[in-house]
Amino acid sequence: MSKALPTRSENYSEWYNELVKRADLAENSPVRGCMVIKPYGYSIWEKMQRALDDMFKETGHTNAYFPLFIPKSYLSKEASHVEGFAKECAVVTHYRLKNDPDGKGVIVDPDAKLEEELIVRPTSETVIWSTYKNWIQSYRDLPLLINQWANVVRWEMRTRLFLRTAEFLWQEGHTAHATAQEAIAETKQMLEVYAQFAEEWMAVPVIKGVKTANERFAGAEDTYCIEAMMQDGKALQAGTSHFLGQNFANAFDVKFQDKEGKLDYVWGTSWGVSTRLMGALIMAHSDDAGLVLPPKLAPIQVVIVPIYRNDEQLAQISEKVAEITKDLKKLGISVKYDSSDNAKPGFKFAEYELKGVPVRLAMGGRDLENGTVEVARRDTKTKETVSVAGIAAYVQNLLNDIQESIYKKALTFREENTYKVDSFEEFNNILDTKGGFVLAHWDGTSETEEKIKEETKATIRCIPLNQEAEEGVCIYSGKPSKGRVVFARAY
Amino acid sequence: MSKALPTRSENYSEWYNELVKRADLAENSPVRGCMVIKPYGYSIWEKMQRALDDMFKETGHTNAYFPLFIPKSYLSKEASHVEGFAKECAVVTHYRLKNDPDGKGVIVDPDAKLEEELIVRPTSETVIWSTYKNWIQSYRDLPLLINQWANVVRWEMRTRLFLRTAEFLWQEGHTAHATAQEAIAETKQMLEVYAQFAEEWMAVPVIKGVKTANERFAGAEDTYCIEAMMQDGKALQAGTSHFLGQNFANAFDVKFQDKEGKLDYVWGTSWGVSTRLMGALIMAHSDDAGLVLPPKLAPIQVVIVPIYRNDEQLAQISEKVAEITKDLKKLGISVKYDSSDNAKPGFKFAEYELKGVPVRLAMGGRDLENGTVEVARRDTKTKETVSVAGIAAYVQNLLNDIQESIYKKALTFREENTYKVDSFEEFNNILDTKGGFVLAHWDGTSETEEKIKEETKATIRCIPLNQEAEEGVCIYSGKPSKGRVVFARAY
Repeated sequence: MSKALPTRSENYSEWYNELVKRADLAENSPVRGCMVIKPYGYSIWEKMQRALDDMFKETGHTNAYFPLFIPKSYLSKEASHVEGFAKECAVVTHYRLKNDPDGKGVIVDPDAKLEEELIVRPTSETVIWSTYKNWIQSYRDLPLLINQWANVVRWEMRTRLFLRTAEFLWQEGHTAHATAQEAIAETKQMLEVYAQFAEEWMAVPVIKGVKTANERFAGAEDTYCIEAMMQDGKALQAGTSHFLGQNFANAFDVKFQDKEGKLDYVWGTSWGVSTRLMGALIMAHSDDAGLVLPPKLAPIQVVIVPIYRNDEQLAQISEKVAEITKDLKKLGISVKYDSSDNAKPGFKFAEYELKGVPVRLAMGGRDLENGTVEVARRDTKTKETVSVAGIAAYVQNLLNDIQESIYKKALTFREENTYKVDSFEEFNNILDTKGGFVLAHWDGTSETEEKIKEETKATIRCIPLNQEAEEGVCIYSGKPSKGRVVFARAY
Repeated sequence: MSKALPTRSENYSEWYNELVKRADLAENSPVRGCMVIKPYGYSIWEKMQRALDDMFKETGHTNAYFPLFIPKSYLSKEASHVEGFAKECAVVTHYRLKNDPDGKGVIVDPDAKLEEELIVRPTSETVIWSTYKNWIQSYRDLPLLINQWANVVRWEMRTRLFLRTAEFLWQEGHTAHATAQEAIAETKQMLEVYAQFAEEWMAVPVIKGVKTANERFAGAEDTYCIEAMMQDGKALQAGTSHFLGQNFANAFDVKFQDKEGKLDYVWGTSWGVSTRLMGALIMAHSDDAGLVLPPKLAPIQVVIVPIYRNDEQLAQISEKVAEITKDLKKLGISVKYDSSDNAKPGFKFAEYELKGVPVRLAMGGRDLENGTVEVARRDTKTKETVSVAGIAAYVQNLLNDIQESIYKKALTFREENTYKVDSFEEFNNILDTKGGFVLAHWDGTSETEEKIKEETKATIRCIPLNQEAEEGVCIYSGKPSKGRVVFARAY
C-alpha cells in the first residue's frame, strides 16, 4: 500500500488499472478476460443494482430468469444479430470430462459431444423471444415488461477491468408491445431511467442520443444511448436502449391477435446496463489519491477514526463515537468506526481516501475536551472542526452537498471540454490537443462516418436528442447537414 | 386454465409438474434441462434471496463475484472434487463461430479452439481458492467470509423444474479460517442460518444433521445438511454446509502465517442453497387447488376482488378498497386490487388460489351496506365476514397466523410420518406402504448403507445433530449401533 498511485496526468490508463486493484474493486482472474469482483467493488455494484431495480419496478417491470445457453441455431435466426455476436462467443460442445487414460488429469470425453452446440449468452434476445412466442397470443398478453439480472459472455480479445471483460454482469430488459409507438415510448422511457440513474445516483452527467446505423445494436431498428465523458476527455457509453421493431418477432414468429382479431407481429425493445458502469463511476470522479464515490453509492458513507494516546482515551473517544454512530444510523447513514490498532491514523486516512469514503470524522484528545470532531470531505479534501452537537444533521447535509458537488464538477468538466468545430482541420486539432466531445456537422452517411473514424479514431457517439436545428456542412464531405452530432474517442 | 390440476393422491409427481407451470412459476426452456423462471416464480425467489442475503450479512459475510468459467486443470486439483463433478459438466472448447461455407447457418470455427478447455462452474471452490491464495498471507487476513449469488451448471440427465435442472441459481458461501475449530463453527452457524430460514420464512420444518461419508460433498471433510419432508413422504435436501478441512488450501497452496510466524494451510468451508428451495416450498404446503405460500414469501399477500353489478357500484367499492389498501400498505402488507373486467369473481378466486395468495378479500353490495368485507384464507379455505373498521390489523394478525399454521401443519405431518423401526422387514414395509422418515439403527459402514439403498431406494438422509444415545443393532447387518439415523427415499 505504500507506493503511490500513478497520477492521472502521468498515465491515465495505468492510474485507472492500479486504482481498480488497490481500492479492492476488482482484479483479473486466472481465466482469460474474466474478472473477480472483490467485496468492496461488489458492494458498490449491489447499490447500483438495488437503485436500478427499484426504478425498473416503479415503471412496471418484473424480473425473470432465462437460460445461460442459447442453441446455435437460435442465434442465427436474426441475420444481423448473428453477424454481430458470432465472432466472439464461448461455445459449449461437450457435456462430460473423463479420466485421461495416459495421465493423471481429465480430458474432454469425445463420446459426450452435443448434437447442437450451445452458445453462452452474449445477450438474450433470441432465447427470450423464442419463449415469448408461447407467452403471447392476444393483445391482452401485452405489454410484456420483463427484466433479467444475469452474467453474459463476449469473447473480447483486449480486456480491461469493468470496461471490457469477457464475462460481465448486467441487466437486460426485454419488452413486447402491440404497437410501434408503444415500443418506442418504452425505449425512450428506459433511456430516461438510465439517464436519471447516471445523474442522480452516479453523479455522472450524460448526453442522451441516438446511435448512427453503424453503431446500432445488432438486430435493432434504433439504438438510444447515454454517453458520459471521462476525465481524459474520452467518451464512455453507459447504457443503451434498443427499439427492435418487429425483427425478433419475425425471427421467432411471435404474433398476437389485436382487439379486432387481426394477427400481427409483436413490437420489441431491449435495454441494458452492465458492470461497465463501475468503470464510468471510477473514471468520472476519482483523483490521484484514489476513488471519489458519490455518497448515494458509497458502501461506507462515513468513517470515524479515533486519534488516541492510550487505552483510557480510546475508551472515552469510543463512547462519544458510539453516540454519534447511533445518530448517524438513525438518519440511514452507513458508518464504520475503525478503532483497529494495526495502523496509525495517517495510514487509515490514506486508506479511506483510496477507497473513496465520502466523509471522514476524526476525534482526538482535544476534540474530547472541546466537544468537537474533525470533519474531512473526500471530494474537496477540505477539513473543518465541528461541534459534536448536531453532527448527524451536519453530516447528512454534507453528504447531500458532496453528491451535488461532484455532479456539478463533472458537468463543468464536460462543458469545458466540449467544442463546436466547423472544419476537419480544427476537428483533428482539437482531438489531438484537447480531446473531449466535438460537436460537428456530418452528412448523415455511414461512409463519411467510417472515414472519419479511420483517420481520427473518433466515432459519432450519438445524435443528441436535444440537437438544435442548424444549417451547416459536413466537416469531412462538405455536404449539407441540419444539425451537429457528438464525436469523440471512446472506451 | 379450465382443466383442474391433477390431485396429489392421483399422481403426486404430475400434480407438482402441472402446478409449477400453471401457477406461472417456471417452465422448460428450449435448452435441454434448463428452465425459464417466470416473473411470478422469480418474485418468490427474490424474496428468498433478500431474506437470506440479510442473514448472511448479519453474520458478517459480504458478497463478491467470481468467474463463470473454470480452467479444466483447476477442477482436477482436488481429487475427489473432480471425481464428483467431471462427469456432468458443460465444456467450452471454442470461442468463435463462422459462416458455414456450405449453407446459410453458422458453424464452430475450428481455428478458434481454446488451448485449455473451460468448464462452466458446477460450484466454485476451485476458482475461488485459486484466488484466495493471493488474498491470504497472514492471520490478519482471516477469517475471509464471502458469498456469491450465481448460476451454476451440472449436466443432469433427468431434470425436473426447480428440483433438478442443468442450470440453476444459487448462493455459495466460501470462507477461510485460521483454525479447524473456527471453520467448523462457521459450518455449523450457516447450517443454523439455513434451518432458521427454512422454518421461519418458508414455514418448512427441517432436521439438521450430518451426511454419511457416501453422501458427502466432493472435497469436504464433513457435510452438514437440512432435510425436509414433502407431502408424499419423500425427503428433500434443502441446504448443505461443508467443512472442507484443509483440502482446497492444499490443492491451491493457500497458506497463512499465524501470530507466532508459523506457516500453515488455511481451513475452509462452503455452503449453499439453490432454486431447489422453490421445489421444497411448493411441495411442502400446496394442495389440490394450487399453491399455498407462506405470507413472508408471498409476492402478493392480499388480493382484493370487487363483486359488482354495475359501474356505479364498482366505483363505490373501489373507493372503499382504496382506503383499505392504504391501511394495509402502511403496515407493509403487499396488496393487489383486481378490478379487471375480463373475468368473473369466481374465476379470479380460482386463479388466486392457484397462485397461493394467502388472504383474499371480497367486497360486494351487501358489504358496502354493512361496512364489512369477506375474508378468505388460502391455507384452510375458510371464510369470515369482518367489519371494515380495523381490517388492516385483522389481516396483519391473520397473515402471522397463517405463517405459523402452515409451519405447524407441516411439522405435524412430518411427525405423523416419522417411524422408529427395528427390523429390516418392518423398514421395507413402512417404506412401501407409508413412506416418510424412518429412524433406524445402522452399523456405520458405507457397505451396509449402499446395500440398503440398492434394496430399498432409501438413503441415509442424515445423522441428526440431536441424535439420542441409544444402544441398538443395525437393521441390516445386526451389528451394534449407538443411535438412530434418518432414512428416506429422497428427491
